[in-house]
Amino acid sequence: MRKELAPIFRPRSIAVIGASTTRGKIGREMIHNILLAEFQGKVFPVNPNSSVVHSIKAYSTVLDVPDSVDLAIIIVAKKHVREMARQCGEKGVKGLVVISAGFSEVGKEGKKRELELLAVCHEYGMRMIGPNCFGIVNTSPDVRLNATFGKINPKIGRIGFITQSGAMGEAIMNHANELGIGFSIIASIGNKADISSNDILDYMQDDPNTDIILMYLENFGNPQNFTRIARKISRTKPIIAVKSGRTKLGAMAASSHTGALAGLDVGVDALFEQSGVMRVDTVEELFDVAAALSKQPIPKGNRVAVVTNAGGPGILATDALISNGMEMPPLSPGTVKKLKKSISAEASFSNPMDMVAGAGGREFKLTLDAIKNDSRYDAIIPIFVPPVTIDQMDVARNIQESLEGTDKTILACFMGAGEKPEAIEFLKDHNIPVYIFPEAIAKTLALLAEHREWLNKPSGKYRNFKVDKAEAEAVIESAYAKGELSIVGEEAIKILQAYGIPAVGYEYASNAKEAVAAADKIGYPVVMKINSPPMLHKTEAGGVMVDLRTAAEVRAAGNEMERRAGKLKEGEKFTVVLQKMVAGGIETVMGVTIDPSFGPLIMFGLGGIYVEVMKDVSFRINPITDMEAREMIRSIKSYPVLSGFRGSKPVNEKILQDTLLKLSQLVRDFDCFSEIDINPFIASADISACKAVDARFILLKR
Amino acid sequence: MRKELAPIFRPRSIAVIGASTTRGKIGREMIHNILLAEFQGKVFPVNPNSSVVHSIKAYSTVLDVPDSVDLAIIIVAKKHVREMARQCGEKGVKGLVVISAGFSEVGKEGKKRELELLAVCHEYGMRMIGPNCFGIVNTSPDVRLNATFGKINPKIGRIGFITQSGAMGEAIMNHANELGIGFSIIASIGNKADISSNDILDYMQDDPNTDIILMYLENFGNPQNFTRIARKISRTKPIIAVKSGRTKLGAMAASSHTGALAGLDVGVDALFEQSGVMRVDTVEELFDVAAALSKQPIPKGNRVAVVTNAGGPGILATDALISNGMEMPPLSPGTVKKLKKSISAEASFSNPMDMVAGAGGREFKLTLDAIKNDSRYDAIIPIFVPPVTIDQMDVARNIQESLEGTDKTILACFMGAGEKPEAIEFLKDHNIPVYIFPEAIAKTLALLAEHREWLNKPSGKYRNFKVDKAEAEAVIESAYAKGELSIVGEEAIKILQAYGIPAVGYEYASNAKEAVAAADKIGYPVVMKINSPPMLHKTEAGGVMVDLRTAAEVRAAGNEMERRAGKLKEGEKFTVVLQKMVAGGIETVMGVTIDPSFGPLIMFGLGGIYVEVMKDVSFRINPITDMEAREMIRSIKSYPVLSGFRGSKPVNEKILQDTLLKLSQLVRDFDCFSEIDINPFIASADISACKAVDARFILLKR
Repeated sequence: MRKELAPIFRPRSIAVIGASTTRGKIGREMIHNILLAEFQGKVFPVNPNSSVVHSIKAYSTVLDVPDSVDLAIIIVAKKHVREMARQCGEKGVKGLVVISAGFSEVGKEGKKRELELLAVCHEYGMRMIGPNCFGIVNTSPDVRLNATFGKINPKIGRIGFITQSGAMGEAIMNHANELGIGFSIIASIGNKADISSNDILDYMQDDPNTDIILMYLENFGNPQNFTRIARKISRTKPIIAVKSGRTKLGAMAASSHTGALAGLDVGVDALFEQSGVMRVDTVEELFDVAAALSKQPIPKGNRVAVVTNAGGPGILATDALISNGMEMPPLSPGTVKKLKKSISAEASFSNPMDMVAGAGGREFKLTLDAIKNDSRYDAIIPIFVPPVTIDQMDVARNIQESLEGTDKTILACFMGAGEKPEAIEFLKDHNIPVYIFPEAIAKTLALLAEHREWLNKPSGKYRNFKVDKAEAEAVIESAYAKGELSIVGEEAIKILQAYGIPAVGYEYASNAKEAVAAADKIGYPVVMKINSPPMLHKTEAGGVMVDLRTAAEVRAAGNEMERRAGKLKEGEKFTVVLQKMVAGGIETVMGVTIDPSFGPLIMFGLGGIYVEVMKDVSFRINPITDMEAREMIRSIKSYPVLSGFRGSKPVNEKILQDTLLKLSQLVRDFDCFSEIDINPFIASADISACKAVDARFILLKR
Repeated sequence: MRKELAPIFRPRSIAVIGASTTRGKIGREMIHNILLAEFQGKVFPVNPNSSVVHSIKAYSTVLDVPDSVDLAIIIVAKKHVREMARQCGEKGVKGLVVISAGFSEVGKEGKKRELELLAVCHEYGMRMIGPNCFGIVNTSPDVRLNATFGKINPKIGRIGFITQSGAMGEAIMNHANELGIGFSIIASIGNKADISSNDILDYMQDDPNTDIILMYLENFGNPQNFTRIARKISRTKPIIAVKSGRTKLGAMAASSHTGALAGLDVGVDALFEQSGVMRVDTVEELFDVAAALSKQPIPKGNRVAVVTNAGGPGILATDALISNGMEMPPLSPGTVKKLKKSISAEASFSNPMDMVAGAGGREFKLTLDAIKNDSRYDAIIPIFVPPVTIDQMDVARNIQESLEGTDKTILACFMGAGEKPEAIEFLKDHNIPVYIFPEAIAKTLALLAEHREWLNKPSGKYRNFKVDKAEAEAVIESAYAKGELSIVGEEAIKILQAYGIPAVGYEYASNAKEAVAAADKIGYPVVMKINSPPMLHKTEAGGVMVDLRTAAEVRAAGNEMERRAGKLKEGEKFTVVLQKMVAGGIETVMGVTIDPSFGPLIMFGLGGIYVEVMKDVSFRINPITDMEAREMIRSIKSYPVLSGFRGSKPVNEKILQDTLLKLSQLVRDFDCFSEIDINPFIASADISACKAVDARFILLKR
């Protein structure tokens, strides 16, 4: 990708097609920005009505440009775009950035226009960003390209930024500028007709000026590809993303906005989790995290020391840190002893270390010196609320001096520093990010800590169990042959068994007498369910009776069920199924759902109310590794129920894990399922009791 | 309170004791600020070493001041404070603001110093703010008092602000100034030796310049008082509070900081909920909400329209609104039809209404005009991301013009407006608050919506059931007489029954034969539990057997339990209790816990895993009204389990509500409980099945 995208991000010559000198027009702002940024190559304005644009000679068409052209920026009306692209092709241009809108984002006709444009690119072997985009930036000193039409010339930095929304791109560039944050590369990818965010990610991976990647996403073109690429890049260059369309209505808005199918949010979360991408909710958080990552190392652990000159902010910081899962070990007795010699007795020698309002540079230095090499902390947060009596610069200098060279993560908080930002600027210039409020620091540290865990995690293995694929196929084909799209009961159990998933067997009976015989065969106690006629909400309608312990109870139940089944319709037959009652276990639910963007998602949760009311389930995109299966089980909130609640024995997790992996394999082997539910799968400490009790497969239409 | 605090907040003459001319000293900054704010009364610096301070004649002692003095600000070293206060008393000063630190916040000796100072105040009938505070402000044009030592002269506004931390007070004042937010009154209350936040609240209630009250709190001196006062004020003047010390460690830090007992956070949440105080987590949110309330009405409902010129921010807004519980009804067909005539066909005519990037003032006006009187919306959010081609001021003017006079709540979002804030200033000046990110708007609206619900809620009644108090007292006294601090089993059930709480009766048996006799008496099925010897975690140890359906099963169970009880110790006797098995209901848990700050808290939740793993419980401070009891039940996440889950009948909520109210009455009648647990209380649609099965009372030591 590096070579293919080089003419776009590192061009030696640019043509701006649709360049203009009218203020407020995109064509003028674009050329203005290119000149203002002091582009290190040559610029050729193209405008049929003007021989000079912005004091530079302009050409009627790109074909008239006397030099070769690497990159063309196209800003003309939508109906002319294809012809301009064709001319670029003739000229031998390598890459296009198409700013013009009115393509697939506006419906069917626009989509057609876009495909025609793409065809021209393919014909001439050109790569294209856009259409309907905000432009691109590369601040590398040997390039200095700002081909956007915003008001801002971005600062140089080591952050790559990919945005799917031009408006968000501009808003984010402006906001970054106010925060003093710089970029290496910015790419507004618009409709992604040719070049996708995955391509740009790939390019940024190799870009020596990019250390961190920010993304604003509305959908995924190819989630599998994204996962593959992002998973690799995340190991060395952290990726932080805002993915909008989180709620259903938001996703609908995203969908009408982009013309793409919006993904279920669980899919997005799973995808980010599996690929190590840090997801944030808001643009503010995006920058909070970027500011930390661009200046500080990822902390080695969760243990934080807070050093403050004011109680209130110290408490706020503590609240926020603890509720975000951080730890705050107390100061060591040695440190306390040392500090008590030199710091006001009115200080609070704990964590937060509150040095009280009189504290200035000297006190910060003493305290920070005492803890900066203390192995009980991974991160240090100096908090300073500037009283009028204290010299802020002196405090900033002492913080910097003390912490220079430490390998801990340092994030500072200057609350209400008001109109004297020199001290803050000083710290930022010395690679210590400064936040206004401690809550942002806590959230940032929590996200970094989570990322560190991801980095440290063994990558996991895909498993291949020995299965009877032919048997499963036979069941599926037989259902299709009968014109049925749903496989339940005994047939469903057969599929599970073919894939080595333990399941409780079935016996059928069509009256009370047969039921007793079946129960005698299975062994007591048994569960009895009405099999036919079909009943909705069987449990509520009394179509299920559990814990039948004797032949007499089974007989009574059989008669009662026949009564409850009511009058049969023509051709209907009364039958019940009997299963061995599995006692003492915990009901879990496993399943598969097909997401339109992400393909099969594997699901795990506890049964009944947990899944239906509490929505306490975990999802992963298929295929899953053994590590991911393990995490799926451990990441539900009700996990303590499985791991040994109030002295009960922990259930056999291995069998749950293997069942999820077998389910994953089943879905890899067959692409005909639209839904799978194993509900319940009994989890128990006793491996022989761990069994699927019921399952349901819904097939896709053929 | 108004009259007593008037000399402090509306003084006609002030003495500044410890006034100084040395830059950076508190005594200098204080007098500097008083002069700078153009205090409308007289100022008398007091300084024994200087006859002039800041160009004003200074006096050696307050007694030398030729005029009468309403308010004295004391800034001298801690050891001189008492003497200065005494002189103020002699002089006839009415109120003190003691800035000096070194009192109860620094431990025992300081506490003593504080009590001596307070005694002086009492002796002379003076009221005091502080010690250890940051000062006070009253921006009323006829007062213009800024008796703080910060860098800021606060703007005039209609917000009252009470802070328990001087540092947070200064930080918040600075931040407000940057946001252009003004105050009516500011009070830093320090150690609250005399005047508490409750007193100031009371004063602000009557202050004609105060419409909204902000609080930064670390603890509550008198929560009952706070509830009483805040509940009243909240009806007319919204109160927004940051209460720090939310986590246990945070509370510990707060406690070491303030020397006060920190409250459980559930208590704080309950208190705010019950008194209508809006709780926010961060200082940023405090101002987000304050900005909305100071310029806009509380929305009448949850229905929001979003009008945007950019898709991305529209989606972010939708996500944030929906996930904060807001609703976004689509545009009416009529509106869509009307707008389609005049707005670009590329727009998305839904909600969010995305007018696409070309939209300017005209489009905003058209769209807002079309929906501003539409009864399907309670709030409107115009979002504008300024493209370079559009005139921001024109957009702002059109938004303002269109929405002038609408009764809906308007909160605008200008993303990345960059260095051209005139449009934003214009809107703010015309009472439309402007936010940078849509998420802040969503959170703010959600909080306002919740407050509206609180305001609309009937206030609820305290109930008095006819109970047999004497019977309950007899059980309690008998336990005390035996030296027992725990009441369980039959005795516990007796207390419940005395208070009209339905409970399942007990039968005892000391062997299998007696057990069968007891079961025959109760009726099958029964539950059997080992009563003695006492067993920890009875359920896990097999000390409980349920659903015994026949005499044979009871006999077997009795023998098995005797075996499980194992070898008895000297003096121990084997007994079991039998109860009627209550089938088919849902286990709930009700209880009381005593919070050191808030007194008894009433608790409700579902039983077992819900309470122990999911922590899905609700708390209210005692006493509770019938409305509060109802809310307690409905506010747990697992409420759908009670209200009819998957077609099951909803349980009888009235009996749950009454049981909570009876529990509340019991705790009002007796102050001897340290803990009460009713676990489980069976909830069912069948009222005769709604019963407490087990209860435990822990008594306080006498």
